[in-house]
Amino acid sequence: MGFWKSLFSTSDTTTAPKSMEADGLASPGMVVENSRIFFSTDRDIDLYELEELCDAVGWSRRPLRKVKKAIQHSFLVVSMWEQRGAQRRLIGFSRATSDHAFNATIWDVVVHPDFQGKGLGKALMRHMIKKLRSEDISNITLFADPHVVDFYRGLGFMSDPEGIKGMFWYPD
Amino acid sequence: MGFWKSLFSTSDTTTAPKSMEADGLASPGMVVENSRIFFSTDRDIDLYELEELCDAVGWSRRPLRKVKKAIQHSFLVVSMWEQRGAQRRLIGFSRATSDHAFNATIWDVVVHPDFQGKGLGKALMRHMIKKLRSEDISNITLFADPHVVDFYRGLGFMSDPEGIKGMFWYPD
Repeated sequence: MGFWKSLFSTSDTTTAPKSMEADGLASPGMVVENSRIFFSTDRDIDLYELEELCDAVGWSRRPLRKVKKAIQHSFLVVSMWEQRGAQRRLIGFSRATSDHAFNATIWDVVVHPDFQGKGLGKALMRHMIKKLRSEDISNITLFADPHVVDFYRGLGFMSDPEGIKGMFWYPD
Repeated sequence: MGFWKSLFSTSDTTTAPKSMEADGLASPGMVVENSRIFFSTDRDIDLYELEELCDAVGWSRRPLRKVKKAIQHSFLVVSMWEQRGAQRRLIGFSRATSDHAFNATIWDVVVHPDFQGKGLGKALMRHMIKKLRSEDISNITLFADPHVVDFYRGLGFMSDPEGIKGMFWYPD
């Protein structure tokens, strides 16, 4: 628990489950409205809390059994939390599949609408990239909806580099 | 070994390692020049044989240690083999990463030049798709080089559906 205490400068961190490991504070600029923002790579996420987050951005609901399986079998899971005193709130999420060697693909990037426009999406993605690079993954990919292509471009992602096209299979 | 014998109608299948499971013959039309073509999902592939196949299509060499790791951590690996009498030859390969629930991404699709233009690439991809669908994966994706976009389109893949863009990360 020493790491927690040093991060939050408070003796009361009892609401943080023991299994939850803070993976790093967002950059100093990421202290939003007197709350602290931190990241975790712990997979032991409350699925109902995650569903609530995805509801907030209007995603279609998915069976929690499958969401659990997908989290278990992702190579990297990064969640973003707001901490106010002893209260924690899930405010962002992202995960990546990978072959653990060459390629990773990022899925399910979400930031709660209350926390959008504050640079937190960028911070979340930078954390993902840093983690993937530290695992020696050289090819980081994703499939971006049209309205977020510029967001990813700002982070160094290129669309269709050298004419490579993202493709999705549909039955004939 | 019963499965092997029934597939190849020969009593001599001793060159096939015991660990190799034939996963299915390609369609009847896939008997090419008196040899039988079959698929396997066995991951115990001779890495030097795979490297030779990738050399034949001009791919850059990759560290075998990493190739091994990538194969181990792929969700699905499909290899394609030519069988002539007791001789087996690796003539095609493909693999997919996945979260085991929603998404799969296909990588490293290769068919030996001697066997291209015979419908074997299509057969290999159809086998991949069938396997992924049987595992309840609904979203099958890939990143296609420009010269193979039409090939994948013919298999039911769509590029940039609803404006979704494939993106690759490059350092700033």
